[in-house]
Amino acid sequence: MHKISASILIIGNEILSGRVQDVNVRFIASHLPGLGIDLKEVRVIPDEKSCIVDTVLALSAKYDYVFTTGGIGPTHDDITFESIAEAFGLKLEENSEALERISASYIAMGKQVHPASAKMAQMPKGVALIDNNLTGAPGIVIKNVYVMAGIPAVMQEMFVNIIPQLKSSDPILSLQVSILIGESRIAAQLGQLQSKYTAIDMGSYPYIHLGNHATTIVLRGADKKLLESAFAELKIMVKDYEILA
Amino acid sequence: MHKISASILIIGNEILSGRVQDVNVRFIASHLPGLGIDLKEVRVIPDEKSCIVDTVLALSAKYDYVFTTGGIGPTHDDITFESIAEAFGLKLEENSEALERISASYIAMGKQVHPASAKMAQMPKGVALIDNNLTGAPGIVIKNVYVMAGIPAVMQEMFVNIIPQLKSSDPILSLQVSILIGESRIAAQLGQLQSKYTAIDMGSYPYIHLGNHATTIVLRGADKKLLESAFAELKIMVKDYEILA
Repeated sequence: MHKISASILIIGNEILSGRVQDVNVRFIASHLPGLGIDLKEVRVIPDEKSCIVDTVLALSAKYDYVFTTGGIGPTHDDITFESIAEAFGLKLEENSEALERISASYIAMGKQVHPASAKMAQMPKGVALIDNNLTGAPGIVIKNVYVMAGIPAVMQEMFVNIIPQLKSSDPILSLQVSILIGESRIAAQLGQLQSKYTAIDMGSYPYIHLGNHATTIVLRGADKKLLESAFAELKIMVKDYEILA
Repeated sequence: MHKISASILIIGNEILSGRVQDVNVRFIASHLPGLGIDLKEVRVIPDEKSCIVDTVLALSAKYDYVFTTGGIGPTHDDITFESIAEAFGLKLEENSEALERISASYIAMGKQVHPASAKMAQMPKGVALIDNNLTGAPGIVIKNVYVMAGIPAVMQEMFVNIIPQLKSSDPILSLQVSILIGESRIAAQLGQLQSKYTAIDMGSYPYIHLGNHATTIVLRGADKKLLESAFAELKIMVKDYEILA
């Protein structure tokens, strides 16, 4: 079975400068396992045209889906639409449906449309729109690339709207247990369990619990029966340690 | 003047699965402007050897620095050291200094060293160590690649310890103002200001303030005088709007 693969491309100087904590990756990432889509890579790049062009093309060729966020507003530093147009060799032109939606959102707020807002309707020719019932201005879909806003609330609104369009597969399920023991202590046994269940992805994540070493072990896979039987063995393996969650 | 460039490589299935919110990018990113180091790219990739090898080599060739986090613990899914060894064609061998530090940290806690912990001292031959006074097990430096832990507290301890070793340059300074107006309203003027000050990077970041459109404008650059004079013009430009911060 072909696994559906995806990548996320965050376009944003504000993340690279450390000014803003990104929360878009986790929002998108946390929705993909349930759709059976495997997130294989995330990149964060600056608002620079050549960099956007190169990265979008590289990710679009490599993965089934590319989800981008950022750079679709009305100011000079919003260059995602024009960069995507250049990447795919398309003309940038006014999308009348997008302009109508932008105007409608201003009217709904009792405000006048500002001319600069029209820039948000300058889109690559022939794209499909991503609905945005929060602020009006739509995102776009071109080939396997979904171009969304950077503001988390707007991105979330857009992403939820594209979910029904995505090809999905068997959900990637996960089961986890946290134990009050350093991961070295269970490393050998867990490695053996992983060797036995090669179709289950086993991760070990150490952390500190009230000053003591603790470990969360996460088992992930699409085969529910196999996952459950691996997890049952894991529970036996850790039965002598204090279970934290 | 050559700008010092950097990239961050997050190695971690737990980020790609959406289970964990990454906070390492912002911690590292927020320290780099003060060092005059320009963060150009972030990637998040899975704990897969071929992917780690390819990505480390690509980033190492492209940027002055690569900061990696994750995958240096004692379990089967911790494969960063062996992947880095393979990337640079080096033998993986026990680093006696690293093993001593790991043992010392166990002894300090009044605990026995667990044999699996010795895996954390299996390092590429000839690397320098990154101090870790929090949990003992060191990170490594190889060429321009700084390999650190994934646990935020440990990563932060390691990163602070490598700062004195990094080449630095004139700090990248920033000034910002937030105003109670949608960014469309200032887009044209801000674009003109950006055209006038090409050495200053001007970003416009819309957000919602108590239900109303607001915008943060951020000016960044290494030339303090130029930055201040651009900012003075910006302040005049926005003087008719309510200043939020």
